[in-house]
Amino acid sequence: MKRSLHVLFAAAAFITLASCGGKSGESTDSAVAAEPVETIKWKLATSWPKNFPGLGKGPETFAEYVNEMSGGRLEVRVYGAGELVPGFEVFDAVASGSVQMGHAGAYYWKGKMPAAPIFTTIPFGMNATEMNAWLHYGGGMELWRELYEPYGVIPFAGGSSGTQMAGWFKKEINSLEDFQGLKMRIPGLGGEVFKEVGGLPITLTGGELFTALQTGAIDATEWVGPYNDLAFGLHKAAKYYYHSGWHEPGTMLEFTVNKEAFEALPKDLQMIVEVATRAANQDMLDEYTARNPNAMKQLLSEHGIEMRPLPKDVIEALKVATAKVIKQKRSDDEAFDKVYASYDAFYQSVKAYHKISEQEYYENRE
Amino acid sequence: MKRSLHVLFAAAAFITLASCGGKSGESTDSAVAAEPVETIKWKLATSWPKNFPGLGKGPETFAEYVNEMSGGRLEVRVYGAGELVPGFEVFDAVASGSVQMGHAGAYYWKGKMPAAPIFTTIPFGMNATEMNAWLHYGGGMELWRELYEPYGVIPFAGGSSGTQMAGWFKKEINSLEDFQGLKMRIPGLGGEVFKEVGGLPITLTGGELFTALQTGAIDATEWVGPYNDLAFGLHKAAKYYYHSGWHEPGTMLEFTVNKEAFEALPKDLQMIVEVATRAANQDMLDEYTARNPNAMKQLLSEHGIEMRPLPKDVIEALKVATAKVIKQKRSDDEAFDKVYASYDAFYQSVKAYHKISEQEYYENRE
Repeated sequence: MKRSLHVLFAAAAFITLASCGGKSGESTDSAVAAEPVETIKWKLATSWPKNFPGLGKGPETFAEYVNEMSGGRLEVRVYGAGELVPGFEVFDAVASGSVQMGHAGAYYWKGKMPAAPIFTTIPFGMNATEMNAWLHYGGGMELWRELYEPYGVIPFAGGSSGTQMAGWFKKEINSLEDFQGLKMRIPGLGGEVFKEVGGLPITLTGGELFTALQTGAIDATEWVGPYNDLAFGLHKAAKYYYHSGWHEPGTMLEFTVNKEAFEALPKDLQMIVEVATRAANQDMLDEYTARNPNAMKQLLSEHGIEMRPLPKDVIEALKVATAKVIKQKRSDDEAFDKVYASYDAFYQSVKAYHKISEQEYYENRE
Repeated sequence: MKRSLHVLFAAAAFITLASCGGKSGESTDSAVAAEPVETIKWKLATSWPKNFPGLGKGPETFAEYVNEMSGGRLEVRVYGAGELVPGFEVFDAVASGSVQMGHAGAYYWKGKMPAAPIFTTIPFGMNATEMNAWLHYGGGMELWRELYEPYGVIPFAGGSSGTQMAGWFKKEINSLEDFQGLKMRIPGLGGEVFKEVGGLPITLTGGELFTALQTGAIDATEWVGPYNDLAFGLHKAAKYYYHSGWHEPGTMLEFTVNKEAFEALPKDLQMIVEVATRAANQDMLDEYTARNPNAMKQLLSEHGIEMRPLPKDVIEALKVATAKVIKQKRSDDEAFDKVYASYDAFYQSVKAYHKISEQEYYENRE
């Protein structure tokens, strides 16, 4: 059996090497056919600094998978924010076809599409496992594709950071009062909910965070979690690190592909792109899950930060405010209402199941 | 940009179609070159009935990915348990090369390798997210490969069912006493722990479960979770469905590949196999997470089953027994000790982190 496989393989490999190198319409000389197959070159623009840990590794992993699986027929090159287009213009660049792919967060496009943040994360919403299930087996992906369809953009799940942290605060938060009036960098729906309970949400890019927090221009900031936050040095600008991330319980990033470019690929390369996004999606959560615990230990033991849970009255007020913000959005935007209806039906169902499985197990294993 | 891509694509596609169809050493006539590239054919033997929901879908998904991504150059055909080899002989078949791949659970090979079950699941151990992180970013995969190396077999993560259910019981369990003396189908380390607290663990294949439970040959059984258990009709044979699955908190299946066959593949097909396992791994958890909640609802509303948490004294006794069983295994087998040391160091670290992130969030969102 093994021997016959070897023979088969040797034949197949020889055919591939020998016949794929020729130019179109020429007869192929197998003796000199080692030159590479012509390559389709794709640009992938991201919203992150080039090689940024975690978030920025996702698209690099994807590109590596595609480049190797396609045997060099499709070559994806990754560009950091600002290299080709600014981080917040990735979607437009993919839509226009000036790049073939993007890696970002759907909630960055909420000005264009109010429903987009639902595909990233919602305050008090689904965690990473649940988001993946909704997207791939609960109808979420179909709604996401529908939302981006008018722009000629195809979305794919692009990796999850898992449950984020509530953020860094310069002062202790002992009650809802301490929370009110704070100037905090918190984007997306989380920011709107924060405003609803009396906070002052600020939008800043990642690169502006540290200085704003250190100079006191802001009182608090959320970012991602221990692994990314440690890399940014946020512990040098604020002492109190609050958990858990009520505002981003399972932040899902996105790969976007220009539809015309995708459809121009032969079927095998289309499948390679799709499966590579799926594997890169998994890989990011694996990495965060492995690296966050070590970063947390380092923050505690080497940098003397104080980790605290947000007080119960803060959590309760944020929940009430979340319901209010979502209700308003459902009445303001038809697409938000439609997508949220699907999200929420799935969520209520999986929440009940996880309560007696994952959640109960977490308690039992203590 | 779009136009230039199209031109590039058209050229590349034409070259591919025109030149890859020819036989080795022949000059290629592009007009008649549509015949397929010679195909490497792989057999994949599984431990599940053909097309079994969930577990059996994993290898089908994998095969579909590989067949499409390779453009037909590598064709994987999936066989159910007993079609080529019995379900419990999959590993040996892969090792001997009589099939190139397998899909099963590593804990089935514990007679051969006592450390193997650690790569599936451990009582009171890691959940699905944590297992994936340990395998892919915590050194777990390297140890798994090392364990299978002497057999010429390469393992890959093969999908997770998530936290399983504690199982089906014909009578209510109100205390540890009710648990003792029960004849229960429960395999692997879970069975050994069950024995330690006074139970009588029985090993039965999936196909024997229903009849054994219905006739009273056994008093209880675990299987997977609502989605698979409903399909087996276990609710017709026992009324009480206990949660959560202390014995299998995140059951990870495995793909196995014959090393010689893998190494004989060209690099691009090797990468296709690897990335396809990674995506199929993710896909299975997504599917279980989506389907279990609906199956649970159906069991409750249509079949009138009673769902209960296991009593606290049962959980506590099982924890003590688990520690004892693991301690014994560590002293009995060097490989078990080595693998468990890595597993446990990672587990303690991620457990502390998940306590203030995923677990705390589950509580906050209620």
